[in-house]
Amino acid sequence: MVKTTERWIQSQQYRKWDLRCLKLQPLSPVPSDIEISRAQSPKAVDVLAKEIGLLTDEIEIYGQTKAKVRLSLLERLKDQPDGKYVLVAGITPTPLGEGKSTVTIGLVQALTAHLSINSFACLRQPSQGPTFGVKGGAAGGGYAQVIPMEEFNLHLTGDIHAITAANNLLAAAIDARILHENTQSDKALYNRLVPAVNGVRGFSAIQLARLRRLGIYKTDPDTLTEEEVRKFARLDIDPSTITWQRVVDTNDRFLRKITVGQANTEKGFIRQAQFDIAVASEIMAILALTTSLQDMKERLGKMVVANDKKGEPVTAEDLGVTGALAVLMKDAIKPTLMQTLEGTPVFVHAGPFANIAHGNSSVLADKIALKLVGEKGFVVTEAGFGADIGMEKFFNIKCRASGLVPSVVVLVATVRALKMHGGGPNVTAGAPLKKEYTEENLQLVAGGCCNLQKQIQIAQLFGVPVVVAVNIFKTDSAAEVDLVCKIAKQSGAFDAVPCNHWSAGGGGAVKLAQAVEEAARQKTSFKYLYSLELPIVEKIRIIAQKVYGAQDIELSPAAQSQVDRYTQQGFGNLPICMAKTHLSLSHQPERKGVPTGFILPISDVRASIGAGFIYPLVGTMSTMPGLPTRPCFYDIDLDPITEEVKGLF
Amino acid sequence: MVKTTERWIQSQQYRKWDLRCLKLQPLSPVPSDIEISRAQSPKAVDVLAKEIGLLTDEIEIYGQTKAKVRLSLLERLKDQPDGKYVLVAGITPTPLGEGKSTVTIGLVQALTAHLSINSFACLRQPSQGPTFGVKGGAAGGGYAQVIPMEEFNLHLTGDIHAITAANNLLAAAIDARILHENTQSDKALYNRLVPAVNGVRGFSAIQLARLRRLGIYKTDPDTLTEEEVRKFARLDIDPSTITWQRVVDTNDRFLRKITVGQANTEKGFIRQAQFDIAVASEIMAILALTTSLQDMKERLGKMVVANDKKGEPVTAEDLGVTGALAVLMKDAIKPTLMQTLEGTPVFVHAGPFANIAHGNSSVLADKIALKLVGEKGFVVTEAGFGADIGMEKFFNIKCRASGLVPSVVVLVATVRALKMHGGGPNVTAGAPLKKEYTEENLQLVAGGCCNLQKQIQIAQLFGVPVVVAVNIFKTDSAAEVDLVCKIAKQSGAFDAVPCNHWSAGGGGAVKLAQAVEEAARQKTSFKYLYSLELPIVEKIRIIAQKVYGAQDIELSPAAQSQVDRYTQQGFGNLPICMAKTHLSLSHQPERKGVPTGFILPISDVRASIGAGFIYPLVGTMSTMPGLPTRPCFYDIDLDPITEEVKGLF
Repeated sequence: MVKTTERWIQSQQYRKWDLRCLKLQPLSPVPSDIEISRAQSPKAVDVLAKEIGLLTDEIEIYGQTKAKVRLSLLERLKDQPDGKYVLVAGITPTPLGEGKSTVTIGLVQALTAHLSINSFACLRQPSQGPTFGVKGGAAGGGYAQVIPMEEFNLHLTGDIHAITAANNLLAAAIDARILHENTQSDKALYNRLVPAVNGVRGFSAIQLARLRRLGIYKTDPDTLTEEEVRKFARLDIDPSTITWQRVVDTNDRFLRKITVGQANTEKGFIRQAQFDIAVASEIMAILALTTSLQDMKERLGKMVVANDKKGEPVTAEDLGVTGALAVLMKDAIKPTLMQTLEGTPVFVHAGPFANIAHGNSSVLADKIALKLVGEKGFVVTEAGFGADIGMEKFFNIKCRASGLVPSVVVLVATVRALKMHGGGPNVTAGAPLKKEYTEENLQLVAGGCCNLQKQIQIAQLFGVPVVVAVNIFKTDSAAEVDLVCKIAKQSGAFDAVPCNHWSAGGGGAVKLAQAVEEAARQKTSFKYLYSLELPIVEKIRIIAQKVYGAQDIELSPAAQSQVDRYTQQGFGNLPICMAKTHLSLSHQPERKGVPTGFILPISDVRASIGAGFIYPLVGTMSTMPGLPTRPCFYDIDLDPITEEVKGLF
Repeated sequence: MVKTTERWIQSQQYRKWDLRCLKLQPLSPVPSDIEISRAQSPKAVDVLAKEIGLLTDEIEIYGQTKAKVRLSLLERLKDQPDGKYVLVAGITPTPLGEGKSTVTIGLVQALTAHLSINSFACLRQPSQGPTFGVKGGAAGGGYAQVIPMEEFNLHLTGDIHAITAANNLLAAAIDARILHENTQSDKALYNRLVPAVNGVRGFSAIQLARLRRLGIYKTDPDTLTEEEVRKFARLDIDPSTITWQRVVDTNDRFLRKITVGQANTEKGFIRQAQFDIAVASEIMAILALTTSLQDMKERLGKMVVANDKKGEPVTAEDLGVTGALAVLMKDAIKPTLMQTLEGTPVFVHAGPFANIAHGNSSVLADKIALKLVGEKGFVVTEAGFGADIGMEKFFNIKCRASGLVPSVVVLVATVRALKMHGGGPNVTAGAPLKKEYTEENLQLVAGGCCNLQKQIQIAQLFGVPVVVAVNIFKTDSAAEVDLVCKIAKQSGAFDAVPCNHWSAGGGGAVKLAQAVEEAARQKTSFKYLYSLELPIVEKIRIIAQKVYGAQDIELSPAAQSQVDRYTQQGFGNLPICMAKTHLSLSHQPERKGVPTGFILPISDVRASIGAGFIYPLVGTMSTMPGLPTRPCFYDIDLDPITEEVKGLF
């Protein structure tokens, strides 16, 4: 009875959360990220969950500071109107990144802790590879962070590990199946696939489904003809067409190209293969795009792993592994609740690659958050890379999968990146910044604002208002920042404001929050950039010309033949996920500003059928980072007495 | 104040738990394991934790039914006397296994739910590989199970995933380091290893430790001589000596032997390598043997991964990765609390291989459980394989690491396995049992009891009383069971009792529980089988002769040279972990009963320095299982509406 009443109240009323925010007292100079994180005591996650209206049986607690949220919530709140949906994207960045994550976190800290507006940040879970490799963690930084940052950056609630397990079970199943098919007669193979258990022989559910796909409507294993036995038992995978790779969540460059199957037990069936970093798995892209357990299971089954010798696609479902993959992913589908430094709620869920996948956090986290914040609240999420890539995919792929309509785009710019676009010297990770970047130079800033203008225009193609957030560094002069804001507004931005969240927390992003709140009241006329019905090549061309500013596209013969194959296989109506460098609007990373007159070369075209997109490759994309001579791990340590983690950043 | 008082009471008093046991109503015929598991509603894990005397801040909840237990408990209860320590071992098994896990669980269900004696089962976490491959799960079976069995068999609380991550970070670090050393001058290498950060150049803590090991007591990076720079910067790993392998927790036979480094970016530094199943990682063995966070960190640093070109060992510490490994393992070190079908407590923690490692669950779980049950309570744990392997290692390796003294050995026997030892036909997984096994045959039983007698005698070598548990199958006749019990008692067992826990739950193991309780009151004079001070070869010979009944041992030249190397490197005083088949007391799996007159061949000798043992290989050991033509996953499915897992067994 109590529960029913509680449910009723929850589902009927919009209410401002009764949230206890955590006080911040920013220090100067700003301490290291891990020191800031550790200096703040997070609320117990069950307290946070209660504050934002979650019921006790809707969360699954993982330790003191993390909880998974059950999808049943969506059913309970299905009649509640959604909040406002805000995307944080960026201009074309330097290799150092321009702070989209810190802006995302700073913005929700400002909205909720300083303006008392319900808000949620929805972030990607970072790969552990870079955490121990080059880049360090990804929980934001300075006084705009998710805490505890070591929980965020390490295993979290195991989602990436679950993806690794599912991905690699499928990979093992492919090679083992090829071996077993190659070393057995049709009859032996069939007898093993459909054995008698206690004298009774029967098909399993997934085998019956395969029979029906083959047009065989029998249910008694003993009645199949020889031809039917053959069709059922042999997938006839063409090893040279296998596109499914193994994954690890470690920067292991020696696995970029390997030969497998060299033990005697594999009887000479060696082949060349590779490991990708786990977040590059199609299963990660599926996790990010799925809308329910049923939908996830269907997508997992549809994943194409190879072609058979006739050129027909072979799927995870054909290998009999759909159910097992769904079982391995049953907890990963639930978003993980954490909090910002100021005690406001955050969902961390999925972290697909931003080149061979779409680079956005999960649809499910956004959907749940939009219900929890209520009609007047805000959900702020982030798109990987520059707006030309992450935002374009967010609109054309993610919003299409979710049906959600964005209210505002926050476009993050830095004086540093704009100077680079204006002709400043190269910016390289690890090397000290040249003086052009540390001293005032209005000319470089002005020269680089063309990139900002172009990215604003890209957002406007989709009919969404843009607020420019200038992420302030201490070396930026007031005149430089003013200039950026002025040009941004002249270029069509709804507003442009400087942000100091990194050094000041949410208090440093209050103006941004106010601008976003105002922009969200604008009428929007959101539209996709292309219709799915167009031919694959036409869709690629539209993105290349309208978004990147290319003169045209040029497909290699391999790319063209893949386009033809996918079209013929019935996959022509999927959206397009461009795998392009993020360091330029063009395909050439060294071309800054707004390149023109280029022909975008498409070297190959691949497909993630389960995730539901075609991904053209613009140049080669590394899907496995490496460890440098001195990886981050040299500084990472654990105090065995206090259990404190040191050296993460 | 409240907490202090609570702590005081907890630490001063022995008390019987106020445990609410779950009622069982066993059905006949016995349903599938997953059906039995699902039909029972587990208690919320925080309720269970409270019932057994854990404080709120001593547990970290993972979902509704699992919790990690913090090691701080050991400090709080350090003055409390330990309970009785019971090891469940087995006779030489058939390939089907004889039910040690079900006996372990049945015994604690009987002790606590039927005799109101505090008890804990401490079990190994199973690998996910076999769960989707051949064997199925490992949560016990029938009415003696850990629930929910799907949680037990799947990701649990992520410990194996953490081991995989740590293991593979180290593997990636080895190959990347060799590449970087081979492609850079001493000076370039040194400048990258010790870079200037904001103009200041300094060694990290782990680099300073390496300098000290090299006898260099400088702290200013700019003062090293060229020779010192070289010594510091070059590990000079000899690639042919690398013993550290990558791991996945998937049955992936195509990774048994691979070539890595074939991408152009690795500049031709290819080499042959392999993946093992994750539970074969030395880090798993360390997790099982460690006694504290500090101890774990030291063991991780000591792991030897290769030799340098001078033949000196290269460790994880030399690679600078100790702290990062400890960070990755910081949660895995905490045992996971679950419950049996009758609501009694279980720790699931660590699951090292029983051949190349010692095959016992963790020291930490046992230690914590022994405090929690109190002086009159019982902790029941299990050793992998037959008593000749698992029990011998439990005593000589695990008890040595923990300092704990066992009170009783429960030796599990089945009529089926005894008939096999008595000359019955082959028993093969997947094939129906021959009639010798399904019909009464006292002669075969009597003939096979020699194996039981020998295993009893092995336990007696260590001075521990033995209770024989005859695990009853429905085809066993009363005369057969009586015969086994009679011979067992004649052979020196303290008692021998039939057990029906599989079909009846704890109620079917009450007699066993009573026998164990009585045996535990015997005076024991526990002793190790050999002194660590003996030479490696002598220790191997003692195990081979006294335990296996070998006439002698014979080392291959490779094995002898490894023994010499380890002795010279200072590792001669470690205990021995024999990697031998479990299907015979000898090295030949087809020799059943009690083989005599054989010379045990030692083909190679390896070392797990961090775990702390030398492991001689008796024949070849597969460290990577494969997927059969029809893996278990064909039957595994997830109901997307109810979220129920189907087909796990």
